[in-house]
Amino acid sequence: MPGVNIAIIGSGVVGSAFLKQLANIKPQEISYNVVLLTTSKKALVSSDYSPLNLSSYDSALKASSTAGYSVDQIIAFLKKSPLPSIVVDNTSNESIAKSYPTIIKNGISVATPNKKAFSSDIKLWNDIFDVAGKNGNGLVYHEASVAAGLPLISPLKELVATGDKVEKIEGIFSGTLSYIFNEFSTISPNDKKFSDVVKVAKELGYTEPDPRDDLNGLDVARKVTILARISGLEVQSPTSFPVESLIAKELESVKSGDEYLARLPEFDSDVAKLKQSAAAENKVLRFIGKVDIPNNSVSVEIAKYDYSHPFAALKGSDNVISIKTKRYPNPIIIQGAGAGADVTAAGVLGDVFKIAQRIAK
Amino acid sequence: MPGVNIAIIGSGVVGSAFLKQLANIKPQEISYNVVLLTTSKKALVSSDYSPLNLSSYDSALKASSTAGYSVDQIIAFLKKSPLPSIVVDNTSNESIAKSYPTIIKNGISVATPNKKAFSSDIKLWNDIFDVAGKNGNGLVYHEASVAAGLPLISPLKELVATGDKVEKIEGIFSGTLSYIFNEFSTISPNDKKFSDVVKVAKELGYTEPDPRDDLNGLDVARKVTILARISGLEVQSPTSFPVESLIAKELESVKSGDEYLARLPEFDSDVAKLKQSAAAENKVLRFIGKVDIPNNSVSVEIAKYDYSHPFAALKGSDNVISIKTKRYPNPIIIQGAGAGADVTAAGVLGDVFKIAQRIAK
Ligand SMILES: NC(=O)c1ccc[n+]([C@@H]2O[C@H](COP(=O)([O-])OP(=O)(O)OC[C@H]3O[C@@H](n4cnc5c(N)ncnc54)[C@H](OP(=O)(O)O)[C@@H]3O)[C@@H](O)[C@H]2O)c1
Ligand SMILES: NC(=O)c1ccc[n+]([C@@H]2O[C@H](COP(=O)([O-])OP(=O)(O)OC[C@H]3O[C@@H](n4cnc5c(N)ncnc54)[C@H](OP(=O)(O)O)[C@@H]3O)[C@@H](O)[C@H]2O)c1
Repeated sequence: MPGVNIAIIGSGVVGSAFLKQLANIKPQEISYNVVLLTTSKKALVSSDYSPLNLSSYDSALKASSTAGYSVDQIIAFLKKSPLPSIVVDNTSNESIAKSYPTIIKNGISVATPNKKAFSSDIKLWNDIFDVAGKNGNGLVYHEASVAAGLPLISPLKELVATGDKVEKIEGIFSGTLSYIFNEFSTISPNDKKFSDVVKVAKELGYTEPDPRDDLNGLDVARKVTILARISGLEVQSPTSFPVESLIAKELESVKSGDEYLARLPEFDSDVAKLKQSAAAENKVLRFIGKVDIPNNSVSVEIAKYDYSHPFAALKGSDNVISIKTKRYPNPIIIQGAGAGADVTAAGVLGDVFKIAQRIAK
Repeated sequence: MPGVNIAIIGSGVVGSAFLKQLANIKPQEISYNVVLLTTSKKALVSSDYSPLNLSSYDSALKASSTAGYSVDQIIAFLKKSPLPSIVVDNTSNESIAKSYPTIIKNGISVATPNKKAFSSDIKLWNDIFDVAGKNGNGLVYHEASVAAGLPLISPLKELVATGDKVEKIEGIFSGTLSYIFNEFSTISPNDKKFSDVVKVAKELGYTEPDPRDDLNGLDVARKVTILARISGLEVQSPTSFPVESLIAKELESVKSGDEYLARLPEFDSDVAKLKQSAAAENKVLRFIGKVDIPNNSVSVEIAKYDYSHPFAALKGSDNVISIKTKRYPNPIIIQGAGAGADVTAAGVLGDVFKIAQRIAK
């Protein structure tokens, strides 16, 4: 039976869900062998490349006396693998992301939900995609780097590969900001205060410990950077285009998330005005990322949508993406959960399947 | 450079768009060589397996004195191909569909928008998927068999492969019936007559020559059969579950489409009553296919949806599909054009890419 050897970096929220899913897949045409699992602190390594036992990885990792493996150590180990190999990067680490060009030049493929490699400087993007898959280099799949497990990156790449021309992408790419705006600005009028909605979002565990890490728009900027590049725009970096921050200037430098939340009500009236002026036009507010190819522009902003627009009816913390192309003048809409351990891990596992189907021996 | 040899059956609406797209793809890591193109009448064959010139296939096919190739002839020809090979079936022919098991057992892969193989008797489905991809057999991809180029079949297969459990699929799978119901039953009340809407749909070229071929629901039944089987239900055939026909009993046997259209107004009041009773509950009517896994049921029917439901806001002739799974209790929604030469051809071409990435040598 053909097979692949897999090295996994990170066993946090996504990593542990990924391991659980991989341990439970039905027997397939290909065998998927995890031969290395590392965090920054500890590692489990199968020195003879026999598959690690995934059912007990957790306790085994805790008990391990092997220090965490660096990327260089992982490459050295996988270069001697008797089977083609895949690194699954389940971290959000930037320096691991920077090593993808080296990993793939060593013939090792990468599957990852980590946005960093694809949304940082354009040079890193080019260093990866100029060589991926060529001359025996590894492949790179990153479906879960935008909208988690929703089918977005692969279909978008396929549209472009078949000769379609992307014209406009608009979307709600943050589960947190989806929830906040879906609660705050609704089709049936409500008088909820922005600060109260943010507080509830934090209590429900939807925000980062400091909500400003969601409200600064940078995560959304990274995601639209990725989609814009796939669509053919040379976006230099996620800070090279306008990103509207939801954080009032006066609160940018307050020390803690708690202090920020305590002072947030001071600015409620500003956002309330926006919401009222939208409602006067039968519109809702949504926090969106936008790629506009004919105008060569990318932006992250608060936008207004008609009550009849698909973005207006959104509920909960779903992501939604609208893709208008030459062949789809009426846009394709893709909607659903864009975060969460299981859906993200499934996106990564799907990538591992796709890679393995191409490289397994 | 690795490559594949491709034999294309059919150069109609989808086939000719497919050929045009394939002729215009950017140079890739893989070379895609069309070595055979056949209709039932004529064929172009490159006896030395050098690529045919796609820019002039149309006139060359017209001028060809080679009779159309049968599936047996195509298999015999491709078995001697120096490169791995793919049959692209751009027909709706049932007997070609029945030959897929033979094609793939000869190591040849299949990419197709033809629903027949996947929506007929369950035996044919099993004969295909019990062996596809195993022991050197060919692969079978059929993204465009439901909802044309929209990302549906591959993502659904991937959900299942990663261990998710499909619970419910509901969708509008017919562009024609989408248009008819979106016009007939709207959020803002209208008094359009069903017969008038069907007539306009026919004038716009949205219906088959005899509109009953859309209104009998059988095409939708075939599509839900495919989705149900992928989701794990053993659907025997597209006639083994309830399919609500939109054709009044009295009009089933009238001779022509024109006579049918002429008599359709006699039945307007029946559908109007349905529409009014839906509107009284703030709902619209939609013609849907439904797969309900816990209840082990599949159906095609007129259903009612709240004004706030994504199906209610649908416009034009778009398809929309809602997929509820264990991991997506809030369903994934996929929406967009589900028919048309270019989007369907792109779905087929995407499948050809995916197959070639796995088999090219
Ligand atoms: N959670 C979601 O819903 C979601 C959705 C879409 C995408 N993602 C992406 O998925 C990735 C993982 O997210 P997560 O929520 O699972 O994060 P997490 O819970 O913080 O887990 C990160 C894991 O990576 C390990 N790690 C961090 N730096 C490392 C290093 N230098 N070397 C080796 N291991 C290292 C951590 O272990 P130690 O700290 O012990 O080293 C931990 O096991 C991120 O890129 C995130 O953006 C997540
Ligand atoms: N059009 C769409 O929007 C759309 C959307 C989704 C899926 N599809 C599917 O795509 C497929 C093709 O549709 P289409 O609209 O392109 O149909 P079409 O225009 O009728 O073309 C069919 C082609 O197949 C050829 N053909 C038929 N029977 C044949 C046979 N036994 N051997 C060899 N060639 C044969 C026909 O040529 P001759 O008659 O000259 O032999 C013609 O070139 C169908 O399965 C359809 O359901 C279409």
